Amino acid sequence: MTEKPLLLLSNDDGFDSKGLKELIETLRPMADLIVVAPSGPRSGSSGAITSQVPLRCSLVSEEPGVTVYKCSGTPVDCVKLALNSFVPRMPDMVIGGINHGDNSSVNVHYSGTMGVVIEGCLKGIPSVGFSLCNHAPDADFSATLPYVRRIVANVLAEGLPVGVCLNVNFPDVPDLKGVKVCRQTDGVWASEFAERKHPHGDVYYWMTGVYVNNEPDAPDTDHWALDHGYVAITPTQIDMTAYGQLKRINDWNWNL
Amino acid sequence: MTEKPLLLLSNDDGFDSKGLKELIETLRPMADLIVVAPSGPRSGSSGAITSQVPLRCSLVSEEPGVTVYKCSGTPVDCVKLALNSFVPRMPDMVIGGINHGDNSSVNVHYSGTMGVVIEGCLKGIPSVGFSLCNHAPDADFSATLPYVRRIVANVLAEGLPVGVCLNVNFPDVPDLKGVKVCRQTDGVWASEFAERKHPHGDVYYWMTGVYVNNEPDAPDTDHWALDHGYVAITPTQIDMTAYGQLKRINDWNWNL
Repeated sequence: MTEKPLLLLSNDDGFDSKGLKELIETLRPMADLIVVAPSGPRSGSSGAITSQVPLRCSLVSEEPGVTVYKCSGTPVDCVKLALNSFVPRMPDMVIGGINHGDNSSVNVHYSGTMGVVIEGCLKGIPSVGFSLCNHAPDADFSATLPYVRRIVANVLAEGLPVGVCLNVNFPDVPDLKGVKVCRQTDGVWASEFAERKHPHGDVYYWMTGVYVNNEPDAPDTDHWALDHGYVAITPTQIDMTAYGQLKRINDWNWNL
Repeated sequence: MTEKPLLLLSNDDGFDSKGLKELIETLRPMADLIVVAPSGPRSGSSGAITSQVPLRCSLVSEEPGVTVYKCSGTPVDCVKLALNSFVPRMPDMVIGGINHGDNSSVNVHYSGTMGVVIEGCLKGIPSVGFSLCNHAPDADFSATLPYVRRIVANVLAEGLPVGVCLNVNFPDVPDLKGVKVCRQTDGVWASEFAERKHPHGDVYYWMTGVYVNNEPDAPDTDHWALDHGYVAITPTQIDMTAYGQLKRINDWNWNL
């Protein structure tokens, strides 16, 4: 009897979010699943880890092929704790999502979903993040699911090079036009805060913001793909070295 | 009269940490400083942002050339809020640190100090993070300071390409041998949790861990430089695209 692949799932929207539940349902025929997800919403967690307070984790449900834990920490904490203490063997993949919201372009740096994926990748496991460009708690993920299955099947069959993971984003449209393998768009968040005044007089700030695409006409970018109805697959690497700058900076004046 | 450069400083150890205070004192003769730092420790914050609770910020001190605010959010929140609401003009540099602890190798993905730096870089500002390989609150930063001034002077004079920042790490030794411009070491954290039992019986976990260097003999890596007494300068880019994989992944079977 062939063992099914084992997939470790997490996210940043919490163990009871719709996107994670749909991910579980669409993948359970293909694989054994272990889910270790935050106990509540952790959007914007990036690669944050928790070292100053203890972490707690509890079993939510255990069905044949699907075991779910919730954990008090960040998305990255969940992956670390799962690999350290909860997986029965090394997973064949780590999967983040399906996120409620866009993680393309520079959002890779803020995304808890991609925190999950980068952590899996740092541990040498093929890792993929899935995100839908719709923040609503009841977003409709149905168009994404055949692509999720195809992408997971491809990664299980083909593998990924060590140090490379996938950041997959879906436009919020019912009819997806297919897949584009893209680069990370050059963009930036602007106008990021709304100022409010408390009844007692002190000022506070809500993070908000407008995303500005610095290259809206570049068809090789992930944001272009999303704008044009394609699934954007951005191969993402954990080595952030700017190799092109090593020599130039070495040539600066280093006399103290 | 020539205007002094304006530097925006933040960190992840909090506004009253020794490393930040020493950074301020060593840079104030060179520049006007605006400091917007977390109100307390935020180690391991990575690029995390706060959108679900409001942020508060208050003036700590205002002296000629040095204005200090503390902020309730993450290191990245501090940079965003500073640029949105507190800087008198666009800063010439964003600087994170001096961190109490090593941010070389894969730690770039967890580091709140590098969260500060990557955020500055995302905003198009030359940005540098400084970290000392010593976690102690009373760590001795004195050997690092001439290098901090040299690196800041170099970046002000030479600039950095858009999308590239510097991750600078100092070994915890009194006599630094000079500078090495390096790449990010391939390493991984292992044995990451210590399990404890509460008097009432439930299990909890402390994050801990052992860093494993997968290439200890590679002299072009940042960890090698640190191990051999050099200041490690790792040029770091915000474009995480794995360009070498675009074609290969595009050639996978994409039929649903």
